[in-house]
Amino acid sequence: MLHRHLAIALALAGSLLVLPAVAAEQDKPTPTAKEILARSTPAEWRTPDPQNLLFMQLPTGRVVIELAPDFTPLHAANIRTLVRNHYFDGLAIIRVQDNFVTQWGDPNDDDNGDKSKIRSLGKASRTLPPEFTRPIDAKLPWTPLPDGDVYAPEVGFSEGFPVARDPASGQQWLAHCYGMVGVARDVAPETGSGSSLYAVIGQAPRRLDRNLAVAGRVLEGMPLLSGLPRGAEPMGFYTKPAQRVAIESVRLAADIPAKDRPAIEVLRTGSASFAALVEAKRNGRNAFYARPAGKVDLCSIDVPVREAKAAH
Amino acid sequence: MLHRHLAIALALAGSLLVLPAVAAEQDKPTPTAKEILARSTPAEWRTPDPQNLLFMQLPTGRVVIELAPDFTPLHAANIRTLVRNHYFDGLAIIRVQDNFVTQWGDPNDDDNGDKSKIRSLGKASRTLPPEFTRPIDAKLPWTPLPDGDVYAPEVGFSEGFPVARDPASGQQWLAHCYGMVGVARDVAPETGSGSSLYAVIGQAPRRLDRNLAVAGRVLEGMPLLSGLPRGAEPMGFYTKPAQRVAIESVRLAADIPAKDRPAIEVLRTGSASFAALVEAKRNGRNAFYARPAGKVDLCSIDVPVREAKAAH
Repeated sequence: MLHRHLAIALALAGSLLVLPAVAAEQDKPTPTAKEILARSTPAEWRTPDPQNLLFMQLPTGRVVIELAPDFTPLHAANIRTLVRNHYFDGLAIIRVQDNFVTQWGDPNDDDNGDKSKIRSLGKASRTLPPEFTRPIDAKLPWTPLPDGDVYAPEVGFSEGFPVARDPASGQQWLAHCYGMVGVARDVAPETGSGSSLYAVIGQAPRRLDRNLAVAGRVLEGMPLLSGLPRGAEPMGFYTKPAQRVAIESVRLAADIPAKDRPAIEVLRTGSASFAALVEAKRNGRNAFYARPAGKVDLCSIDVPVREAKAAH
Repeated sequence: MLHRHLAIALALAGSLLVLPAVAAEQDKPTPTAKEILARSTPAEWRTPDPQNLLFMQLPTGRVVIELAPDFTPLHAANIRTLVRNHYFDGLAIIRVQDNFVTQWGDPNDDDNGDKSKIRSLGKASRTLPPEFTRPIDAKLPWTPLPDGDVYAPEVGFSEGFPVARDPASGQQWLAHCYGMVGVARDVAPETGSGSSLYAVIGQAPRRLDRNLAVAGRVLEGMPLLSGLPRGAEPMGFYTKPAQRVAIESVRLAADIPAKDRPAIEVLRTGSASFAALVEAKRNGRNAFYARPAGKVDLCSIDVPVREAKAAH
């Protein structure tokens, strides 16, 4: 919403909007996302597998990433190995390119770096099979979207991730939507290891689809990656080391005692509440948005995440 | 590009890539955007009308906005009046909502503000006819895109702006792509005056199309609007006044002596070079991007802007 007045905006976002009793049915505001989520059932939420959940601690806060091993299993495994080596601890955000990506990794592993100080990947692989696409498989969940896509014959959601697919080739792939996490690489397709990752911070760069491996999605903390000064070098690399945000640590949820893990839940993309959210995006109507779009594109749909308060 | 190594990236971005002489024609890299622009002719660039060009000075640098009076003429006129009153000088960026918008205006004109200090709009109107759409008109330039759109029957460019249109209704409108500048309003459609504006900083919120007036586009300085900390209040409003970025001044190019105006040019969206750029987005291929998307969506196309160095 783009209100000049916060109170009006909040009233509309909530349920405080009072309409005349004579308003026709089609003029009634449709349920808001907040209302839909308030009615969701516990079974509609899933707890990500702790083997797939990463906590990246920055000086400014915590970024939570869910890996997608059904789409990029070798990358997920290699990233876990790196994380368990504490590979990322002390590395940094090396690049922020406007309307494109925020990338992190080893500052010495680029041109201005000190090659003698490049950090070892330890037991992790330096190269991996690309995993740019994977076969369509009826065993994976699939929630199609109804409004088409400029880039792919079919789009929808699978296990919380935005997915594009091409029945003609039998392949599917994670789409480069806002907040998706991809694997940086050199020119050769197999040179991505997961030691340098990027998050999409602008209009979905869908031309990257099928050219890079997508490892997962940022569940929490996107503002910590997107709200950073852009780097002045070509492609958004920072000019001075002091401009880089340091990575304090990256940890796997599975390596944190269960009682200390944040209780993060993600709305199931096969749930009725998720379908209602998609419909609210397509045809949501209130006093402010009088003209529903009637459509929604894949990358305009947010998959809700919540964190239950610790009971102890 | 998502290279780990800057040198490789720059080589690919330029023309330094050496391929074996035996490479088949289809394996040759296609021209890069940089190469296409280097070959563009002076006549392919236009100088925006100084009546439509705004310079917003922030402590961090200059944001340049081009108004779009062929789409929102009453809003353009009202914004000019506000600017000539120096209305915006000393106001601020009041809101940064992640993956949505950065909005500026009068901090006192919201809930936490001091109503007694709301700045007068002077001779500018407090309300305007909405101008959410306008008729399709053969007199306006039109460069259609070939790959369709999720939201509208037709999309393309007109005078440097991304446009969607619906031949059935005979209407067209500026699309809410990254960097487009819209007019904040209250609930009633006519309550937008241009005294509070927003720029899109995330995935194109196309559901806003036809619900809000779009006044123009940021030509330069998007990183100064997008690379800001997100506000912690609902909808990205800042919690504390000190978090707001101040607007030092907003000036119209027409009010600056011609010799002192930055010589900003925008590539004509009807030019051959622009068509080549669109084709490079669709089917560009190099050693890094081996698999062209074959398609491009409206909001993934950047309209190039350049600034000639002053000759004096």
